[in-house]
Amino acid sequence: MSSNQTNNNLPAGSKVVLGFSGGLDTSYCVKYLTEEKGYEVHSVIVNTGGFSQEELQQIEQHAYRLGVKTHTTVDAVKSYYDSILKYLVFGNVLKNNTYPLSVSAERLSQALHIAEHAKALNAAAVVHGSTGAGNDQVRFDMIFHIMIPGVEIITPIRDLKLSREEEIAYLKSKGVDMNFEKAAYSINKGLWGTSVGGKETLNSKGILPEEAWPTQVTRNDAEEIKLHFEKGQLTAINDQQFDHPSDAIRHLQSIAGPFGIGRDIHVGDTIIGIKGRVGFEAAAPMLILKAHHALEKHVLTKWQLGWKDQLAQFYGNWLHEGQIMDPVMRDIEAYFESSQANVTGDVFIQLMPYRFQVIGIESAYDLMSSKFGKYGEMNNGWSGDDVRGFSKIFGNQTAIYHSVKDSAK
Amino acid sequence: MSSNQTNNNLPAGSKVVLGFSGGLDTSYCVKYLTEEKGYEVHSVIVNTGGFSQEELQQIEQHAYRLGVKTHTTVDAVKSYYDSILKYLVFGNVLKNNTYPLSVSAERLSQALHIAEHAKALNAAAVVHGSTGAGNDQVRFDMIFHIMIPGVEIITPIRDLKLSREEEIAYLKSKGVDMNFEKAAYSINKGLWGTSVGGKETLNSKGILPEEAWPTQVTRNDAEEIKLHFEKGQLTAINDQQFDHPSDAIRHLQSIAGPFGIGRDIHVGDTIIGIKGRVGFEAAAPMLILKAHHALEKHVLTKWQLGWKDQLAQFYGNWLHEGQIMDPVMRDIEAYFESSQANVTGDVFIQLMPYRFQVIGIESAYDLMSSKFGKYGEMNNGWSGDDVRGFSKIFGNQTAIYHSVKDSAK
Amino acid sequence: MSSNQTNNNLPAGSKVVLGFSGGLDTSYCVKYLTEEKGYEVHSVIVNTGGFSQEELQQIEQHAYRLGVKTHTTVDAVKSYYDSILKYLVFGNVLKNNTYPLSVSAERLSQALHIAEHAKALNAAAVVHGSTGAGNDQVRFDMIFHIMIPGVEIITPIRDLKLSREEEIAYLKSKGVDMNFEKAAYSINKGLWGTSVGGKETLNSKGILPEEAWPTQVTRNDAEEIKLHFEKGQLTAINDQQFDHPSDAIRHLQSIAGPFGIGRDIHVGDTIIGIKGRVGFEAAAPMLILKAHHALEKHVLTKWQLGWKDQLAQFYGNWLHEGQIMDPVMRDIEAYFESSQANVTGDVFIQLMPYRFQVIGIESAYDLMSSKFGKYGEMNNGWSGDDVRGFSKIFGNQTAIYHSVKDSAK
Amino acid sequence: MSSNQTNNNLPAGSKVVLGFSGGLDTSYCVKYLTEEKGYEVHSVIVNTGGFSQEELQQIEQHAYRLGVKTHTTVDAVKSYYDSILKYLVFGNVLKNNTYPLSVSAERLSQALHIAEHAKALNAAAVVHGSTGAGNDQVRFDMIFHIMIPGVEIITPIRDLKLSREEEIAYLKSKGVDMNFEKAAYSINKGLWGTSVGGKETLNSKGILPEEAWPTQVTRNDAEEIKLHFEKGQLTAINDQQFDHPSDAIRHLQSIAGPFGIGRDIHVGDTIIGIKGRVGFEAAAPMLILKAHHALEKHVLTKWQLGWKDQLAQFYGNWLHEGQIMDPVMRDIEAYFESSQANVTGDVFIQLMPYRFQVIGIESAYDLMSSKFGKYGEMNNGWSGDDVRGFSKIFGNQTAIYHSVKDSAK
Repeated sequence: MSSNQTNNNLPAGSKVVLGFSGGLDTSYCVKYLTEEKGYEVHSVIVNTGGFSQEELQQIEQHAYRLGVKTHTTVDAVKSYYDSILKYLVFGNVLKNNTYPLSVSAERLSQALHIAEHAKALNAAAVVHGSTGAGNDQVRFDMIFHIMIPGVEIITPIRDLKLSREEEIAYLKSKGVDMNFEKAAYSINKGLWGTSVGGKETLNSKGILPEEAWPTQVTRNDAEEIKLHFEKGQLTAINDQQFDHPSDAIRHLQSIAGPFGIGRDIHVGDTIIGIKGRVGFEAAAPMLILKAHHALEKHVLTKWQLGWKDQLAQFYGNWLHEGQIMDPVMRDIEAYFESSQANVTGDVFIQLMPYRFQVIGIESAYDLMSSKFGKYGEMNNGWSGDDVRGFSKIFGNQTAIYHSVKDSAK
Repeated sequence: MSSNQTNNNLPAGSKVVLGFSGGLDTSYCVKYLTEEKGYEVHSVIVNTGGFSQEELQQIEQHAYRLGVKTHTTVDAVKSYYDSILKYLVFGNVLKNNTYPLSVSAERLSQALHIAEHAKALNAAAVVHGSTGAGNDQVRFDMIFHIMIPGVEIITPIRDLKLSREEEIAYLKSKGVDMNFEKAAYSINKGLWGTSVGGKETLNSKGILPEEAWPTQVTRNDAEEIKLHFEKGQLTAINDQQFDHPSDAIRHLQSIAGPFGIGRDIHVGDTIIGIKGRVGFEAAAPMLILKAHHALEKHVLTKWQLGWKDQLAQFYGNWLHEGQIMDPVMRDIEAYFESSQANVTGDVFIQLMPYRFQVIGIESAYDLMSSKFGKYGEMNNGWSGDDVRGFSKIFGNQTAIYHSVKDSAK
Repeated sequence: MSSNQTNNNLPAGSKVVLGFSGGLDTSYCVKYLTEEKGYEVHSVIVNTGGFSQEELQQIEQHAYRLGVKTHTTVDAVKSYYDSILKYLVFGNVLKNNTYPLSVSAERLSQALHIAEHAKALNAAAVVHGSTGAGNDQVRFDMIFHIMIPGVEIITPIRDLKLSREEEIAYLKSKGVDMNFEKAAYSINKGLWGTSVGGKETLNSKGILPEEAWPTQVTRNDAEEIKLHFEKGQLTAINDQQFDHPSDAIRHLQSIAGPFGIGRDIHVGDTIIGIKGRVGFEAAAPMLILKAHHALEKHVLTKWQLGWKDQLAQFYGNWLHEGQIMDPVMRDIEAYFESSQANVTGDVFIQLMPYRFQVIGIESAYDLMSSKFGKYGEMNNGWSGDDVRGFSKIFGNQTAIYHSVKDSAK
Repeated sequence: MSSNQTNNNLPAGSKVVLGFSGGLDTSYCVKYLTEEKGYEVHSVIVNTGGFSQEELQQIEQHAYRLGVKTHTTVDAVKSYYDSILKYLVFGNVLKNNTYPLSVSAERLSQALHIAEHAKALNAAAVVHGSTGAGNDQVRFDMIFHIMIPGVEIITPIRDLKLSREEEIAYLKSKGVDMNFEKAAYSINKGLWGTSVGGKETLNSKGILPEEAWPTQVTRNDAEEIKLHFEKGQLTAINDQQFDHPSDAIRHLQSIAGPFGIGRDIHVGDTIIGIKGRVGFEAAAPMLILKAHHALEKHVLTKWQLGWKDQLAQFYGNWLHEGQIMDPVMRDIEAYFESSQANVTGDVFIQLMPYRFQVIGIESAYDLMSSKFGKYGEMNNGWSGDDVRGFSKIFGNQTAIYHSVKDSAK
């Protein structure tokens, strides 16, 4: 493909839907597609919790100034939680035991809403502003291939391989007035956390400086909070009920963020095979996941816990790789849903600067209930004789194995 | 079984080997077995890193005063690491994502050494002081059944169901002079951590008070350290080489312990089916496990990491349940061993009061090596076109699935 | 425990429920418990498809002649299928890739019905006739412990350790007249297959002689049949609809049994740690499982198939070990249920003496649908260029791995 | 890419290595690359057991007649077994429980040898004759990308998208004289089986006609054979020792092939996302895999069997998808290797037309050894009382679960 062509040949006047963030790349896309290609561009922004109403209005104004035919704002926060985040909580999903998958998850939610919009508008093409160097291109491509198979996918930034400077020069030449300054740290904010990339994360060693973190630490004290879960979902904080778990998440973030909780750096496998490293802050997600897991340890049986872990590891990885529409994900979600029947109760947590501590839980479904005997104390349910018999049978096969092996020598 | 009989009928004069800790229960066992049963008692203590030389000498003197025929001290620290801890590091094993399995692991090491001693002495029976209420009885029973199948297992405390007070009264009546006071917190110390049980851990809610922790926090500053791993094993700290990884673990503990790092409370499934809760401090183990995992994230492929996790979860649980002699454990260890071929490099960590932060790694095997392209930047290895093709094929089956499903309606 | 006592001390006149088969062991139990213990015995037989109406009537008469207070026949065929077999089909469960788990599954169904009966009658104890040498004792014990925790479990045959001859002598002394002859092969028949044990299966080598098989081979021709599945369940055979899948299973068995299909010998791990070997014939189960799997290979995605297999392996083993009431089984069933949404279609099979062949399938959900390209032929969905890009990215991490490894040398 | 260009721009005179089979596609490649591109073509054929010496000589002559500079024949049979097939046996690998992965495995072996040859000759490019429609292109591409990263990959048939007729016309125009007839069934033969594709396998229903099978059924009797395994490898048949397991496989094939054993049709997922169907005959592989598994059921512990199955499922799928060079495969092979320590013994099998039956095994490592009690008979190792205790503890957590759940209502 030559360097001044995108991968399509739609006639001028074609209707295209563009996933729009208001940044340099997608601003370039609007101008390029309207002016060079003559397309009718319909921009859409899907808010998964990262934008304020004011920001969304500014983005809308910017889109119209660039020349879009229509601009649409989708408030996806609740659907994002209901269709994806809920299951990440059920599965206690942390990629590589670290990362809550915030960007992976919200990109899929956005792609699904954009696809729906393209379908509703009967667009000839869908456009995303991804470069050819990251995960997002795969997620957008795949969701569009799957959900709107007849619709062309146009990726100007990936195809034209323009430098940042070339994009700016082009936009300036078209009279576009916007903030062209490059931020020292690239930030991606959403309901499930904020990622932070910078020069320190481009290498295998180095942590982000204090000022790079979007939320500054302003709490130096300690605070105890109580999270209430109903069938695995966070429904109340300190006895305050919320209409929707996404509201509870936002509220928890407002409490815990100023403690600097949930900051970390994730190293992991990108979809395209290289390793990547990124900082993130995710106070509410980390508290919810750890509290939820603590509750589960009390109310689930050993094998419920075990299989959940194995399925969740796969679920998180497969979601990360953009495969959310594979029906295996529905099957695993059915497993998760079933497993949450008794995950109801309160979790008590102490917040402190940069860290927290789970104090304990209270649940009607607590299998540690003292009526069945406290660990280390005798009880009425069974006797030492029972355990002696158990030990003999439980180790029987291995005893036979060693005896056979010795005699086979 | 009546309440004043143990489960055996060996003739007086029989030679029995007793796992001895010097505490109330095993002191009772010596007196009971020598004086009531007329056995020849050979006590053995297996040090897995929890005892000082001075303590071991005091225990030996105590044993002889109680009337043992011989007393033996086994220094098991290195063999404990080589046969068990090494694999827990390779597997990044934390039970329920929390607990380094310190007690589980050392009890098995002890049982194996006691069995070997009983075999060497050609003992008629082996004695352990476990009650009928915990995990340890199962671990001792099973290892003895498996390793010394013809030898009787005698468990006076479990069988006689004596109260603490009855044991003390008996020992006093026999003129035994020892510390009969009950500690507020029961402590179990070893190379891989120290467990702490107390009234707070008997319920589902409550954390240990500051004074309950064996290692008090005396460091309020920050310190950066460098851990060097060779094929998955910790061999040097801050460029200081150690003869054996167990020495490195002890040294690391001496540095990190005073920061209060690695304190937590574990809730989990006991072998006998109830849930149990226990506090622990494990500064060195937590640092090693997290540093090792960080290094692995850089040097292992995606599926190497994935399968290791699944095998390690099982490995930890099965070890916890006393099944270390099942040959499946050897097979998993072979997997682990193979996976560590490239787990060589330095890990940089910042220690702070109560917490730590992995700063990064340096390794010749780092797959994040910038020569293959930095994440988010284009490179020479592949193009956006390649990724476009990849996305199409990678999502192909799911695209077919949705198309078939739509047309089947 | 002395050899002439069972493990209980209920007062005479106590109401006990006995799982009754009409054989020697349970006949002994009735006489022993009524005459020696003075209990009020309520016998119950749970038919999971192995007994004809005539046999059930004879068993009832025999029970009353032995002296039971009441005798109850539970027709459990449909509930057995609905609560257990359905999921074994969904999971294509064959233990060790061989055995349909017929005995394991029906014993659990029986134990659950017996427990329910004991609860309904408010019995003081429940009795089963298992010996101390097999799997069934564990299944009965466990289900009773779990479902009717306050109710005593009495196991005369296990406790008294009587020989067959002693039982016969006792019954004869009490004037009982029944068939005391020992069959050359012990047979256990149910809806999901018939097990056959004999002298050949007691060792690691040897197959059952032709005459040992309950169903003799009378068909020497070939027959093609069509099985129709709706969401994973067999609902029609050769276009004949059935009210309930259990009826379809019986009908299929009547067609396929005379071909000698589904005969095999299973070697596996008993719950108590030793290996056991048993013959079985299961024409309908084997056909259904293989047909169902063939259909799934066409309609499920790669990872749906993969995870189903892993969960099914565990599900079968855990069921085999009597753990059907562990809630993890409900979670896995939810996964299975979800996975069957599109498992609808026809499977064509050719029956021949001792074997069969799946000819193919027809399904509206077939992912092999030719509109997406036939394997090995080019199509419109993607190009060779797409695959070239895919290959590059798909192998990218491993390429980096080898390059890094080479340069690290 | 235009339709008359391949994807490269090497100068005329460049040295290229071509994987050559002597068929239409690779014959076209030789002519096209020498005459249209002016390259120096070095052909190589890697024999994984499918070619006779005579066929190999004919292929060599054909290559030289077409104009290659050099032609090399690699006898890969032993290395193919040692590096791949051995592990497929250890893992009892059958894709989707059906297919021994013959084509997948040998294509990888061939790709690895071709890459080695290209490296040895310092070739500028490597050529394979795959179309853009199947699995093989991915396997060749990936292995070449990984093993010889600097070397260009040329794929004329995929790039030029020529029809069979166009290829023939071109070759005829160049005076090439070879058999241009298309076979009714496409056959791929190797040590691990022969695949057969035809019009019946292009659809979801239909079986191959008798005459399509390469090996015709000429045995109508029965024969008993004995296979001897040493640490998991087949080393002797009927007491005849073989120098190398690949020789044993060939000999077994010569015995069992004429019975028509091991014929089946596989339906599965291609690497590129569509479902494919193919017939195959694999008498020796099926016998070896089933015999090996039977032996393992006797000598491995329950969890050894369980984990092997899970790892083997992944191993087979990942190999099928061309990922043999991922180091996770070495880790799994280490697991397999460890697991085979005791897989030594004889397996007895009866061969019959179209089917076989495992009669039993003899092994010094047999865990079914009668000295530990026969299943269903009492023994000295443990008592009914032990099992009673076992049952209580084994079901304890589930009993607590149900009790807690009931009281929480």
